[in-house]
Amino acid sequence: MTKGRLEAFTDGVLAIIITIMVLELKVPHGGSFEDLKSLLPVFLSYVLSFIYLAIYWNNHHHMMQTVKHVTGTILWANMHLLFWLSLIPFVTGWMGENHFTSATVFLYGIVLLGAAIAYFVLQNLIIKSHGDNSILKKALGKDLKGKVSPVLYLLGILSSFISIWISGALYILVAIIWLIPDTRIEKALKNER
Amino acid sequence: MTKGRLEAFTDGVLAIIITIMVLELKVPHGGSFEDLKSLLPVFLSYVLSFIYLAIYWNNHHHMMQTVKHVTGTILWANMHLLFWLSLIPFVTGWMGENHFTSATVFLYGIVLLGAAIAYFVLQNLIIKSHGDNSILKKALGKDLKGKVSPVLYLLGILSSFISIWISGALYILVAIIWLIPDTRIEKALKNER
Amino acid sequence: MTKGRLEAFTDGVLAIIITIMVLELKVPHGGSFEDLKSLLPVFLSYVLSFIYLAIYWNNHHHMMQTVKHVTGTILWANMHLLFWLSLIPFVTGWMGENHFTSATVFLYGIVLLGAAIAYFVLQNLIIKSHGDNSILKKALGKDLKGKVSPVLYLLGILSSFISIWISGALYILVAIIWLIPDTRIEKALKNER
Amino acid sequence: MTKGRLEAFTDGVLAIIITIMVLELKVPHGGSFEDLKSLLPVFLSYVLSFIYLAIYWNNHHHMMQTVKHVTGTILWANMHLLFWLSLIPFVTGWMGENHFTSATVFLYGIVLLGAAIAYFVLQNLIIKSHGDNSILKKALGKDLKGKVSPVLYLLGILSSFISIWISGALYILVAIIWLIPDTRIEKALKNER
Repeated sequence: MTKGRLEAFTDGVLAIIITIMVLELKVPHGGSFEDLKSLLPVFLSYVLSFIYLAIYWNNHHHMMQTVKHVTGTILWANMHLLFWLSLIPFVTGWMGENHFTSATVFLYGIVLLGAAIAYFVLQNLIIKSHGDNSILKKALGKDLKGKVSPVLYLLGILSSFISIWISGALYILVAIIWLIPDTRIEKALKNER
Repeated sequence: MTKGRLEAFTDGVLAIIITIMVLELKVPHGGSFEDLKSLLPVFLSYVLSFIYLAIYWNNHHHMMQTVKHVTGTILWANMHLLFWLSLIPFVTGWMGENHFTSATVFLYGIVLLGAAIAYFVLQNLIIKSHGDNSILKKALGKDLKGKVSPVLYLLGILSSFISIWISGALYILVAIIWLIPDTRIEKALKNER
Repeated sequence: MTKGRLEAFTDGVLAIIITIMVLELKVPHGGSFEDLKSLLPVFLSYVLSFIYLAIYWNNHHHMMQTVKHVTGTILWANMHLLFWLSLIPFVTGWMGENHFTSATVFLYGIVLLGAAIAYFVLQNLIIKSHGDNSILKKALGKDLKGKVSPVLYLLGILSSFISIWISGALYILVAIIWLIPDTRIEKALKNER
Repeated sequence: MTKGRLEAFTDGVLAIIITIMVLELKVPHGGSFEDLKSLLPVFLSYVLSFIYLAIYWNNHHHMMQTVKHVTGTILWANMHLLFWLSLIPFVTGWMGENHFTSATVFLYGIVLLGAAIAYFVLQNLIIKSHGDNSILKKALGKDLKGKVSPVLYLLGILSSFISIWISGALYILVAIIWLIPDTRIEKALKNER
């Protein structure tokens, strides 16, 4: 039951974050296609953030399937993750409205990195609390994806002062890595049964 | 369980989209009936979008009743649908505030068409993953509604450059088609039991 | 299951409506108590609407406990109710920001009346679909509250052109009538078991 | 079931409150780090409020685990708590945007105090309705935390006219007190089984 309510709360927060972002797409006062032009960068950053949040929801969802009990520490680690994700609408809006300046691309990366670290911490706490035989541990294996992502984010953050195109490419690369269907947990769950 | 969380997340996002739209009804600064006048087009587009979103929730709800297992691809197809639906508050506000100019009516149709296609893809992925005996397949039959709607949207989109009245009529027509009680899935579910 | 998802969706929409209203309490730019003064009417209308929405959630919740199956018509009647409730943040903000002018008090009453009628329709559809022995029917009895409320709203709406104080008093009166603990359904449910 | 829907509704409202707060972090129009500076106080108050709301969700969640049945009075006491919590985004925004003036720190404390009292009332109503053997009663013991917090809030509120640093320190102190893992309820639930 504890698990159910944790999932429900996380779903609620993620659903709101993903939807609230669209409010940054401020309705333009003119009604011609011209008036939409200035919104393009905001729209592009919206799409990127939407994909990121969808990936987080997907991964969270799969990870929780392996969870049997929830401790107080896990609840807080989950809140910590939600905190970083809750900042995404802000950095998305800031980056889009200011047409991807270095500072905005830098901060966007910081928030993505913060969320990635928070997810990593949450994942490890779940594994710890479920013992060496935890399904999650078996499923993740060496967890290459989880370890490469923060490094790529860090590179992206640092690149923001040289070229925002490199940063952008790196952020998109992480998204693509995670979009490739990942059946590790599904397989591990099947083996368990 | 996977199915339950998919439904919960979809419900959350749809509930927020449908409610956030009302924020485009900006409170006027004057307190007389006169001050409401300029809001009428925004209100009308709100009503239309509310009905569309209610139809989507209704159909999604019925479709999910036939689903027995959820794959990763289905999760992503569902996210794709939510992406298009999440744009509805924006196009609704744009269309309403600019009193239904061609461009706004055009874009509104594009988003409706995008959502319709996303729904169609989701539906087919569910059928595929449930085999030839899928309840959904039997329920839909030739799925005339599902096939006619995108065509009507397309006609509406193209008409927007000739007359927004034709576009509007076509969009409303699709809504009416779907509002007519559709008991295909309910019947198919009954037969199954 | 259908019932569960209907409740979840309604809860979601109500939770968002009740929380979104607070966004009409625009943060004042000064940091002294003086700066809060102008917000008082907005705050008062917020409190009133919060109570109304809480009453609706409470009643909806109790009513749904008696429901055994949900038809397509019930789904749509519920959507109709949510439509009226979704307009509450707008009329609340309009009334508060314009310091309770006749027109705003009038429209506020119209939306309350619309919601009351929608609730009444929903209630009757549930009773109809559950046959003469429906628990809800027994619980409601003559449903005095349900019949008196629309009349009081109507009087409040009409009074708005004479004195907004009478309207306000009538609207508050309806809230008080419903705040008095109503154990009809709880009793009927107990008898049933 | 009643309990489930109460939890779901509370989760929904809390999820929205916690996420809506981020909308007070208005996207600045410039894209340099300089432009972020003025947002720092808003961000700090956001972090504090996020932690408070997370604590409330956590405690509410644990408290509900001990609940076996829900009465009408409990439903209303819960609504009363949600009312106070719903004001947090407003006072957070007001305090942050006006750089922690006395009046804003005062009002922030008032809302925290109101929420604390509402929580206390809800807790006692739950204990009352579950009899002397209530798990919650055993778990709370003398409930030192619950009794000390309102006193600290009150001191913080009064200090706001002398020094907002004392107020701030006191508010943060309460947060820390509650952040320290509290296993009273978990233990009591285990003993019960």
